[in-house]
Amino acid sequence: MQVDRDGNGNLVAWWGTAPSGGVVTGSHLDSVPDGGAFDGPLGVVSGLAAVDRMRSDRVEPERPIGVAVFAEEEGSRFGMPCLGSRLMTGALDADRAAGLRDPTGRVLPDVMNGAGCSPDLGRSDLLHDPAAFVELHVEQGRGLVHAEAAVGVASAIWPHGRWRMEFAGRADHAGSTAMADRHDPMLTFAMTALAANKQARLADALATVGRVEVEPGGTNAIPSRVRAWLDARAPEEEVLQRLVAAIGQQAADRAARDGTSFVLEPESVTARVDFTVALRDQLVGLLGGAPVLATGAGHDAGVLASAGVPTAMLFVRNPTGISHSPAEHAEPADCEAGVAALATALTALSTNSG
Amino acid sequence: MQVDRDGNGNLVAWWGTAPSGGVVTGSHLDSVPDGGAFDGPLGVVSGLAAVDRMRSDRVEPERPIGVAVFAEEEGSRFGMPCLGSRLMTGALDADRAAGLRDPTGRVLPDVMNGAGCSPDLGRSDLLHDPAAFVELHVEQGRGLVHAEAAVGVASAIWPHGRWRMEFAGRADHAGSTAMADRHDPMLTFAMTALAANKQARLADALATVGRVEVEPGGTNAIPSRVRAWLDARAPEEEVLQRLVAAIGQQAADRAARDGTSFVLEPESVTARVDFTVALRDQLVGLLGGAPVLATGAGHDAGVLASAGVPTAMLFVRNPTGISHSPAEHAEPADCEAGVAALATALTALSTNSG
Repeated sequence: MQVDRDGNGNLVAWWGTAPSGGVVTGSHLDSVPDGGAFDGPLGVVSGLAAVDRMRSDRVEPERPIGVAVFAEEEGSRFGMPCLGSRLMTGALDADRAAGLRDPTGRVLPDVMNGAGCSPDLGRSDLLHDPAAFVELHVEQGRGLVHAEAAVGVASAIWPHGRWRMEFAGRADHAGSTAMADRHDPMLTFAMTALAANKQARLADALATVGRVEVEPGGTNAIPSRVRAWLDARAPEEEVLQRLVAAIGQQAADRAARDGTSFVLEPESVTARVDFTVALRDQLVGLLGGAPVLATGAGHDAGVLASAGVPTAMLFVRNPTGISHSPAEHAEPADCEAGVAALATALTALSTNSG
Repeated sequence: MQVDRDGNGNLVAWWGTAPSGGVVTGSHLDSVPDGGAFDGPLGVVSGLAAVDRMRSDRVEPERPIGVAVFAEEEGSRFGMPCLGSRLMTGALDADRAAGLRDPTGRVLPDVMNGAGCSPDLGRSDLLHDPAAFVELHVEQGRGLVHAEAAVGVASAIWPHGRWRMEFAGRADHAGSTAMADRHDPMLTFAMTALAANKQARLADALATVGRVEVEPGGTNAIPSRVRAWLDARAPEEEVLQRLVAAIGQQAADRAARDGTSFVLEPESVTARVDFTVALRDQLVGLLGGAPVLATGAGHDAGVLASAGVPTAMLFVRNPTGISHSPAEHAEPADCEAGVAALATALTALSTNSG
């Protein structure tokens, strides 16, 4: 297979020489810190395995088949999830991406140069206007366990986003500043983390605080600043907006009590994505009535769907539902079932003009 | 002045050639992250300025005068406050100190070697059994503002300590794990930070959480672990023990609700130190009835007092009371008053056989 790359760090391997109007699968190879082995790589490996299977089954596709790898899907290094696919589709401005910094302060183009990728950020024609994109991914929940199925088809991605929360107070000595004289942003932060949990439960939504930075960060210093990130997701956009507003209001009220300040800044907010209904129904039929599931997790497939590419997703059963953890898992037999389902989908989409 | 050093990174400059039975002043030059200019350095600079003043006043001390600098008083790098003075007096075991690591994982002896200090950790005779030790320090509160005095004398250091708190849960995906299925240690931590504040207020004591580490630390990952440090101080040891026990009980109760685990581990706990009463009263008399203050902050003077050295402290007025912050301050005239008070004390202690 011929490998092409773009200036955003994305790759695609082609089976077939005239890529325009092809059928593309793929996912990502990056992970969260201390993550698992399946979220991302399973979709790339399964794409290559599906091509092998189609070749050994002597499938002769009428459309070229691509297996893509998108850069920085998790956003773990530069804080922007789906960085590669957003740049490729033009959903993220190249100038904004060029200013993103990793935790050590290095900007994206410098890091790409250091890693041997020549950066040329911005919209690219890497996939050549594909007829369809199908991403296979390990499930990040237990929907398929409950449905007793190895493989399922996605209906939608919940609207979701990440917001940076800045809590500012006054640095002071932990050993000599009376409790009543403090302006301690740790307290405002702590109440906000609890409020996020409570409001998400009330809204049947999701809210998480997984990243916190404290300044100055000394054991015996009252912090001057706490910076934390809120990850929030909900089935509908209105529910998500109300959830984030409720958390922000509780944080602001507590900041007034603590004599601190609070700012809530959206870093990336993604609208609800409904995958292409005709494609979804076609895959459900091809797979003998596979279950249909929505997900709260963002994916490159969501970015491509929003860019107008006919898009579907396949999920592979995860016995515990755990992901973003070394305990993330899929049984080999279920992974094989995923490859078979993907090969079936790619065969149908590439041989009957999709 | 001749400068001596020991294998713990401590220094002393001597005025006089036979140091045994000398009168020593001094403090430290290290600070907390993003700290101020006075906490520590004021005591060292004032010691040198007091020697200058005594020389220009043609004082001829009968005892040698030492100006000491103790290493790593704040414990900002290796997590152990008063590291240098504790090692020097034998209050901290050399083997334990040799295993202390900085946030990058480097052990103390390696860091000392890298900084050009030849490590030889453990009890040292750097100060040669001094007759008295007097530490001058910027006040870390507003006691002298209320007393309308530039200089005060310390009575005692509150019992205080730092405890490491480990909250462990289960890493999982923020976008696909139902709120009810989570074991999120961030929640247990957040409630504990609020409990520490509340319990300290109820006990008329001090409790602070100024340092937090989250694993894995991804915006879209439910944490597997939150590690935070509790700094707690109280006027009496029994109050401190009850305070820490109450915080630990609230944390354990919340951990049971969150399906997380909680461990509280003391890292350094310092008993109440009462400074030498006769010396304190002598200084109050020499300084024309200066106010007497207790403090919640630990100091090298406390370590020396606990090791049996006759010890006193002088405080210099701090207009805002703020310390461990760039806003920490003392007016030049008050610093001059501090030097004058210290020169008076050192003169009296070194010329009338203390």
